[in-house]
Amino acid sequence: MAHVIQSIPRLPAAVLEEIAKYPPATLHEAQGRRGAFDSRLKPIYPGMRLCGPAVTASCQPGDNLMLQVALSLAQPGDVLVVTFGGHAEQGGFGEVLATACQARSIAGLVTDGGVRDGQALRDLGFAAFCPGLCMKGTVKETIGTVNHPIVLGDVLVRPGDIVSGDDDGLCLVRREEVEEVAGLSEAREEKEAKFMQALRDGADVLEVLGMDKVLAAKGCTYGDDEG
Amino acid sequence: MAHVIQSIPRLPAAVLEEIAKYPPATLHEAQGRRGAFDSRLKPIYPGMRLCGPAVTASCQPGDNLMLQVALSLAQPGDVLVVTFGGHAEQGGFGEVLATACQARSIAGLVTDGGVRDGQALRDLGFAAFCPGLCMKGTVKETIGTVNHPIVLGDVLVRPGDIVSGDDDGLCLVRREEVEEVAGLSEAREEKEAKFMQALRDGADVLEVLGMDKVLAAKGCTYGDDEG
Amino acid sequence: MAHVIQSIPRLPAAVLEEIAKYPPATLHEAQGRRGAFDSRLKPIYPGMRLCGPAVTASCQPGDNLMLQVALSLAQPGDVLVVTFGGHAEQGGFGEVLATACQARSIAGLVTDGGVRDGQALRDLGFAAFCPGLCMKGTVKETIGTVNHPIVLGDVLVRPGDIVSGDDDGLCLVRREEVEEVAGLSEAREEKEAKFMQALRDGADVLEVLGMDKVLAAKGCTYGDDEG
Amino acid sequence: MAHVIQSIPRLPAAVLEEIAKYPPATLHEAQGRRGAFDSRLKPIYPGMRLCGPAVTASCQPGDNLMLQVALSLAQPGDVLVVTFGGHAEQGGFGEVLATACQARSIAGLVTDGGVRDGQALRDLGFAAFCPGLCMKGTVKETIGTVNHPIVLGDVLVRPGDIVSGDDDGLCLVRREEVEEVAGLSEAREEKEAKFMQALRDGADVLEVLGMDKVLAAKGCTYGDDEG
Amino acid sequence: MAHVIQSIPRLPAAVLEEIAKYPPATLHEAQGRRGAFDSRLKPIYPGMRLCGPAVTASCQPGDNLMLQVALSLAQPGDVLVVTFGGHAEQGGFGEVLATACQARSIAGLVTDGGVRDGQALRDLGFAAFCPGLCMKGTVKETIGTVNHPIVLGDVLVRPGDIVSGDDDGLCLVRREEVEEVAGLSEAREEKEAKFMQALRDGADVLEVLGMDKVLAAKGCTYGDDEG
Amino acid sequence: MAHVIQSIPRLPAAVLEEIAKYPPATLHEAQGRRGAFDSRLKPIYPGMRLCGPAVTASCQPGDNLMLQVALSLAQPGDVLVVTFGGHAEQGGFGEVLATACQARSIAGLVTDGGVRDGQALRDLGFAAFCPGLCMKGTVKETIGTVNHPIVLGDVLVRPGDIVSGDDDGLCLVRREEVEEVAGLSEAREEKEAKFMQALRDGADVLEVLGMDKVLAAKGCTYGDDEG
Repeated sequence: MAHVIQSIPRLPAAVLEEIAKYPPATLHEAQGRRGAFDSRLKPIYPGMRLCGPAVTASCQPGDNLMLQVALSLAQPGDVLVVTFGGHAEQGGFGEVLATACQARSIAGLVTDGGVRDGQALRDLGFAAFCPGLCMKGTVKETIGTVNHPIVLGDVLVRPGDIVSGDDDGLCLVRREEVEEVAGLSEAREEKEAKFMQALRDGADVLEVLGMDKVLAAKGCTYGDDEG
Repeated sequence: MAHVIQSIPRLPAAVLEEIAKYPPATLHEAQGRRGAFDSRLKPIYPGMRLCGPAVTASCQPGDNLMLQVALSLAQPGDVLVVTFGGHAEQGGFGEVLATACQARSIAGLVTDGGVRDGQALRDLGFAAFCPGLCMKGTVKETIGTVNHPIVLGDVLVRPGDIVSGDDDGLCLVRREEVEEVAGLSEAREEKEAKFMQALRDGADVLEVLGMDKVLAAKGCTYGDDEG
Repeated sequence: MAHVIQSIPRLPAAVLEEIAKYPPATLHEAQGRRGAFDSRLKPIYPGMRLCGPAVTASCQPGDNLMLQVALSLAQPGDVLVVTFGGHAEQGGFGEVLATACQARSIAGLVTDGGVRDGQALRDLGFAAFCPGLCMKGTVKETIGTVNHPIVLGDVLVRPGDIVSGDDDGLCLVRREEVEEVAGLSEAREEKEAKFMQALRDGADVLEVLGMDKVLAAKGCTYGDDEG
Repeated sequence: MAHVIQSIPRLPAAVLEEIAKYPPATLHEAQGRRGAFDSRLKPIYPGMRLCGPAVTASCQPGDNLMLQVALSLAQPGDVLVVTFGGHAEQGGFGEVLATACQARSIAGLVTDGGVRDGQALRDLGFAAFCPGLCMKGTVKETIGTVNHPIVLGDVLVRPGDIVSGDDDGLCLVRREEVEEVAGLSEAREEKEAKFMQALRDGADVLEVLGMDKVLAAKGCTYGDDEG
Repeated sequence: MAHVIQSIPRLPAAVLEEIAKYPPATLHEAQGRRGAFDSRLKPIYPGMRLCGPAVTASCQPGDNLMLQVALSLAQPGDVLVVTFGGHAEQGGFGEVLATACQARSIAGLVTDGGVRDGQALRDLGFAAFCPGLCMKGTVKETIGTVNHPIVLGDVLVRPGDIVSGDDDGLCLVRREEVEEVAGLSEAREEKEAKFMQALRDGADVLEVLGMDKVLAAKGCTYGDDEG
Repeated sequence: MAHVIQSIPRLPAAVLEEIAKYPPATLHEAQGRRGAFDSRLKPIYPGMRLCGPAVTASCQPGDNLMLQVALSLAQPGDVLVVTFGGHAEQGGFGEVLATACQARSIAGLVTDGGVRDGQALRDLGFAAFCPGLCMKGTVKETIGTVNHPIVLGDVLVRPGDIVSGDDDGLCLVRREEVEEVAGLSEAREEKEAKFMQALRDGADVLEVLGMDKVLAAKGCTYGDDEG
């Protein structure tokens, strides 16, 4: 197979808009506690968010050559998802590449490598998710792959899968399940809104969440002696 | 003994108000460098503070059932202190439970598990201290304990002990020592205020802190060759 | 040799001003991908910056005696660089010592130990770089060294070497190479500004950065099958 | 889809025998530096080896129910590959389950959870690969999956894929590539045997491995000043 | 209270002999999944075992003064349990102190600090449990405590509590529960022996362990499509 | 300066023989608690030892080209000391290169990268010290340095400095201090032998080590109440 696959499966714009409404924690729960990345992958500053289809790249540790190839192929709204084999003590993405991304309206970057020029990225408003900022430079020497499936942060990412992130971290929705998961997420948000209204109205948390019956069935015992 | 003890030893409101005046680093020093939790337990956003009596829970990793029981028993101003056996790659507390806490005026959460819905908690102004945000869902299956003594972040926490936190992390004051520690803290703050005034006035740091004599006694030598 | 060397090699003020213009990531690249500290050493709050000559100290884990000696010898604009042998679960620097530093116009602190009184340091505007906040107290018992060369965060620091930090972490420039590195940094910034202008104007990232030729030379292949 | 898929794709015995001849490092290189698991997954004692098709299970952290289901379905020579979502501070597999495995001639266990009864497993000669021994008990409460694809140690494992391990850690070979990889591994071993013979005969390492030309092409310079 | 308490509560020799029969994983399960230390505390070489009453000490990081006091007070069969506040990058115990221990027939050492002279300790047959070997020297400067309760590896250890260790790590049994736990351990070993015999005889693991009913009750579904 | 310096400063054979008599923990203490490497650098199997002058190399993470150059220049008895910038999730040294080393009588390898073919190296009796075994392959693309000073495991290593290792880890002795340190080590071993003889003869550990006076001077108090 070729090193670089030039295009990814794409969903209709309306579907992408719909899935972007829900935060990643909701997507994770709605699809049955699946899709969450390792929590070490976090936004470089609180408040950053992204949601879009993955353009994937696989790089050698300390070498950002294939990240640049992925960038050159990405379309507006895409998310670059790049593995460096878990080597985060490097900064293979910074202000120059973020400028290139924004010139193409790329939605953001997800990587298990490090990122640098943090303050510049914050000023640009470019969403980057990674294990942390690191300034150490990379080389550009080794051919890897673009738009092949990769594993990153304990999650399999295929090109075109949706990646969504906020301060809680990142969640993936498989490209063929996006519509279904959007529907499940809406239902979950409605249910949780009702729970929260009941709680604000003074209802007991165990009753609202149905835990009173679980506890009774499992034989939880209560007593009064102070610890 | 019962799984769940329904009440905790409580201190007078005036004592709670007094101890809440001092930041946790001061409490730690005032009581003889004791009580500090593992520094991985931090507020989920800078600037969050809490101080109050502990309502404790012990949960199975990945299972938040007993946290909910603790929540249902806590009183205004209490702090939920919950161990998941150190498993932080989960998010057993989020917006719904934070809403339940605020409906009961609970002061905050301390846990060695993870927390999710970070942005929502920040907007609610709910103080949560943990090793980090993580969205991974939990089950509700296993009976544990509430208001038994627990060990969390290298500290023994008994129900009713005072837990205080800010950006520096968390410190515990034993419930029977609170008044004494408040007095020691006040004295320490006064002493440090004098040190700082002297330093701002240009005094030598070694003299102010009494280190000049220590260094002389231990035989510290000085020279002039540049490194 | 004496435990404490009382002065450090110093560069002209104009040279210090010049090197302070460039962020540490630029210095790192300009001098050939050298000088970056372990990325765990970070500002205690985003946005803190420092740049200045190192006054070094070597302390026993859990003991800040020699940090105080270094502080007593430092001049305006100096950076305290202090190793505790990598023991970060302690807070050997806080509000009192930060007040002493500011009374002497010391530029900041770099340490592989922890720091406490975070909120107070933030309010003071004192730049501290370390692995994290921790309140645990230190003793003052053991003689170490001041202004001897030390290794900290995987970097050799000699007294008078320049240490520069921002959100990306820290970089060292050897005292005898500062002028040369400033020149190389200026050239690098000019080159990157041109790259970014070209990218904002719509140029292809692979062409701008010269990667198109690298990829062709290394035999990178392209295909169209979707993943 | 059902929680539990009862059978896995199987390769002919001769193919399994062939692939078992090569250590995992050879398989990894032969298939183009692919398939290696996170190196934290190691044998619980040096010298343990395994190679066989994966029967996969996905368990909740702290809950080994589905591991037991996988065990009940595995055939002689199979390898149990079980994720607990990366929670290794538990021991969800010990002497009782190892005895059950050996009664069925199961080849070994690979897990990102912990393992206990280390000495007993060593005495039984049962190969277990994990991040470390831990005695902490698990519950049996939560339904997960068996023989669905899982991600474990940064590798996608599908039922029937071949997992091979020794002291270096673990490598996966995709079930449809086993024959090809066996051939490539044999070729690699022959080539390396020739290299080693030449080196034992006194040949220069740079010449034998062809690095002399690489260094010359890249402009590596040599000098004589002592450091 | 005095820094040093000179004696510990002691159990009859017959009780100590009885509890020493069971490995720590059995003790942990028998007392309801309680008492296990953080699994980073391991024997410095596989195969080391210990079981005995704790003589506790609390030391400043990098300072082994109070460990020596604890040693001077320990009786034959005792286990030294020493916290250095979690600072393991030091070696505050080596051949000289192990020789002193053996001269007093002390059973072993448990610490969250490091240990050195590994090969010598192995040759002496002295059981040491810690996070790892480290040669870095300690000072002897700071008064701490001996035979006060301490927290170590996430467990509260009171003087005279029983600490038991093997390759799986360490477990504590509270001094007042030792007899009860010995009885529960014996029952558990008998039950497990029956399970293992049934499994060796070919019984189904799910039936033997009663999981078939659990799975049915929870609605686990089975299918045949290959993954 | 040239990338590769072809020779290193060398000490007389008699001096090398003398320093090799002492284990690294003794060298560390004898020279004033200096020279110990980060304790994560350990032999790949217990019992491995090495001592010899360093031939240094600096490699890009994931790229072992310069390690091979260092190997080609090393002399009998030398130790290869190679930094990969702390990236240990790779195996840039294995059976082929170990065979090349043994053909040249190289004493061993020290690296902050990983090592592979563990079992083969053990069979060869080749001493390798690193953070752990890892099979992941490296490329050979990037020019670095050989026989320049490097920082590795928190220690500055200059070509020709002596590196000594056993199960406790590694210690460096500066090339110009080797004779002095050998003398100090001999004195230390004699002193410790006397201590150990006294302890075996039943002397009190606090008296033997002079701690009784330290404790009295610092005001350590003793009591009898049981904990």
